[in-house]
Amino acid sequence: VEAQDVSGISESIEGANEADVAALLDELDMEEALFVLRVLEREFAADVLIELDEEPQFKVVQEMESAELAALLDHMESDDAVDILNQLVVKDREEVISHIQEKEKSGYIQELLRYEEGSAGSLMAKEFIKANLNWTVVQTIEEIRRQAENVEKIYSIYVVDNKESLLGRVALKKIILSSADTKVKDIYEEDLISVPTYMDEEEIAEIMRRYDLEAVPVVNAKNKLVGRITVDDVLDVMREQAEEDMQAMSGISDDVEESDSVFRLTKARLPWLFIGIVGGLLGAKLIGGYNAGLSKYIQLASFIPLITATGGNVGIQSSSLVVQSLAAKSVFAESLGRRFAKVLMVAMLNGLVLGLVVFGTVVFIYNNEVKFGIVVGLALFCVVLLASFMGTVTPIVLDKFGVNPAMASGPFITTANDLLGLAVYFFVAMMLLNL
Amino acid sequence: VEAQDVSGISESIEGANEADVAALLDELDMEEALFVLRVLEREFAADVLIELDEEPQFKVVQEMESAELAALLDHMESDDAVDILNQLVVKDREEVISHIQEKEKSGYIQELLRYEEGSAGSLMAKEFIKANLNWTVVQTIEEIRRQAENVEKIYSIYVVDNKESLLGRVALKKIILSSADTKVKDIYEEDLISVPTYMDEEEIAEIMRRYDLEAVPVVNAKNKLVGRITVDDVLDVMREQAEEDMQAMSGISDDVEESDSVFRLTKARLPWLFIGIVGGLLGAKLIGGYNAGLSKYIQLASFIPLITATGGNVGIQSSSLVVQSLAAKSVFAESLGRRFAKVLMVAMLNGLVLGLVVFGTVVFIYNNEVKFGIVVGLALFCVVLLASFMGTVTPIVLDKFGVNPAMASGPFITTANDLLGLAVYFFVAMMLLNL
Repeated sequence: VEAQDVSGISESIEGANEADVAALLDELDMEEALFVLRVLEREFAADVLIELDEEPQFKVVQEMESAELAALLDHMESDDAVDILNQLVVKDREEVISHIQEKEKSGYIQELLRYEEGSAGSLMAKEFIKANLNWTVVQTIEEIRRQAENVEKIYSIYVVDNKESLLGRVALKKIILSSADTKVKDIYEEDLISVPTYMDEEEIAEIMRRYDLEAVPVVNAKNKLVGRITVDDVLDVMREQAEEDMQAMSGISDDVEESDSVFRLTKARLPWLFIGIVGGLLGAKLIGGYNAGLSKYIQLASFIPLITATGGNVGIQSSSLVVQSLAAKSVFAESLGRRFAKVLMVAMLNGLVLGLVVFGTVVFIYNNEVKFGIVVGLALFCVVLLASFMGTVTPIVLDKFGVNPAMASGPFITTANDLLGLAVYFFVAMMLLNL
Repeated sequence: VEAQDVSGISESIEGANEADVAALLDELDMEEALFVLRVLEREFAADVLIELDEEPQFKVVQEMESAELAALLDHMESDDAVDILNQLVVKDREEVISHIQEKEKSGYIQELLRYEEGSAGSLMAKEFIKANLNWTVVQTIEEIRRQAENVEKIYSIYVVDNKESLLGRVALKKIILSSADTKVKDIYEEDLISVPTYMDEEEIAEIMRRYDLEAVPVVNAKNKLVGRITVDDVLDVMREQAEEDMQAMSGISDDVEESDSVFRLTKARLPWLFIGIVGGLLGAKLIGGYNAGLSKYIQLASFIPLITATGGNVGIQSSSLVVQSLAAKSVFAESLGRRFAKVLMVAMLNGLVLGLVVFGTVVFIYNNEVKFGIVVGLALFCVVLLASFMGTVTPIVLDKFGVNPAMASGPFITTANDLLGLAVYFFVAMMLLNL
């Protein structure tokens, strides 16, 4: 690449998969990547551009001329073109769209740009095959031929009536196996799952997983067929969701990867660590308030980590269970009351077992007074109850406000639980030990 | 259902989707579910059985007669049949297989049962369409017609030579658009991604996501085409993987859900909580050893939660980043040395910022001695370094030993980090404060 050996590049790349070429370009700097993209055949360059990582893609897109970018968009399906355009400011976006040759495609793109990010409308492509109820198989094959270049993967043909309302689908297999003059209405299946344009992408992913779909049609409020979402987009949604959850749980802001720069990694990690530090400093203030009592009963200090760690562990377990059942969106959810009753039961059982074990160890193995064993055991029991409650309520509340509920398993809540646990521990100690 | 109203059930279920019916049966007890399955048409009952949740499916499968179960397996693709059979003990398995009518299917099933769980071999189905290189389009369509009932979803036709070696694929779209006497060898694509039988399911999921595949052919060591994996199976793998990771991070053993029984939930949660308790008790022992020093310098106790919490947060962040990059299996991984250098840099930066903030707060806001501020700030710096190192190394080591690396973000490592942090904190304090 450095020598800018044009024929060398195109030769070595010929026949390679676009995803592999993109992975290669991700490692180059922006000028080099741009140079390679310009050398490649346009249709292939368009495929490679789609597959680039977020950061290099953003940089390349910013740098390209409007006409040049538009020429690549001409070779993309509408949903991919929109993903690229969304990286430009509105003014540049209009400029690029005005350079797109195919009027049908620029119309599609303008329609898709209007949908909210993360909705079915923003995820769908306008390219798909539809057939009228009254067509014959031959007419349908003609339509497939006409659209063959625009629609890369067909799967099913969607069947609509004269008002463009979605009625059902015909598998490609059936088209092949039916005689030429068979009517579409005699071979189509009515049992069809579709999603509305406003549905959230995670819900769509769950529907496609549950019903084993490779593609799902999107309809507007009048049941008019307006687009199609394919499973490859949903695989990306699921992967992103899993990464987001893990980052929320581990307290990393931003979408960073291990391969990012030291500066970017530090910036993504510091904010949540900082919140932990503030929590720790507040905890220090709280414990400092009991210094007199602590001096009289120095063993109290020893069990601070036991209390805070257990609170943290219980809280994370509880919230993770809730996050999971929120993600699965189970149809037959138990009532809120029954769920809380169950959470309480589990917490009491866990708290009782752990509290007794700790009481026993503190008194019989560590040879402390019985009274002190009761303090630690009882405080632990209370902390388990409280942390279970917090861990259950927080993700539900976050979800209601549209925040990723996995945050509840992250450092913010853990920090809050630490403080709560400390307060309970010292309160119980002061009461029972008369400090 | 209670009234066992046969015609009522079949009527109300007619036309419903198998996944919805399965979700309904999941809520019934085993006898009721079994009753409904027996009332349904066999082909539909087979689809519903596949879609049942793990627990009800297991119970129903155990209860069915061998011949009855075999009759349902006759209507399943081989991979689904194997999933069902894997729930039986070997003896019952043989018995059921002997009742399967189609000899081809029972042969398929016996072959698939030999592959290790979680490998491509165990995930693939034997039902797919293949065409010889020298066939014409008409011959290929004949093959599709012959197999139409066995292969529910076709996507592509795989092209093999006379030795059954995989050469490429033809999209169904191309079959429709080509004339009847076109040879397969003139229209097939050679650029084809396949996976070996021994490849791990998570790696397959990542390949299918990366290359946007709806199905991938499986080959044996001699490149002979032996099966096909479809994307619906991979969606389940991804969902399971995300759930497993979250459970590993939150310290829940077993595959439990919020809707499980109180007893099951408690059993799944107690073991990790117990490990946390053991860690906490060891920590108490460790701190107890410094009681004399603590009495002289009571402020030391106040900052215990700050130290342990920060160690925990840093460790989880580090391990989550590693877990992510292990999952993505990036092709252009940086060298281990460079990665550690970067981890060290990020840790030093984070540690420096946090250490200084804490030093400042302890000295200027909480009005402690400068010497004591240095103790807390320096201990914090060391803990950040250590926790980063532990958080980076542990998932790599776990992965090497075939354990889910997400465990490294779970309670076991957090507990270990707590102890390590406490040891560092008291060591620094004893040195600098001459206690």
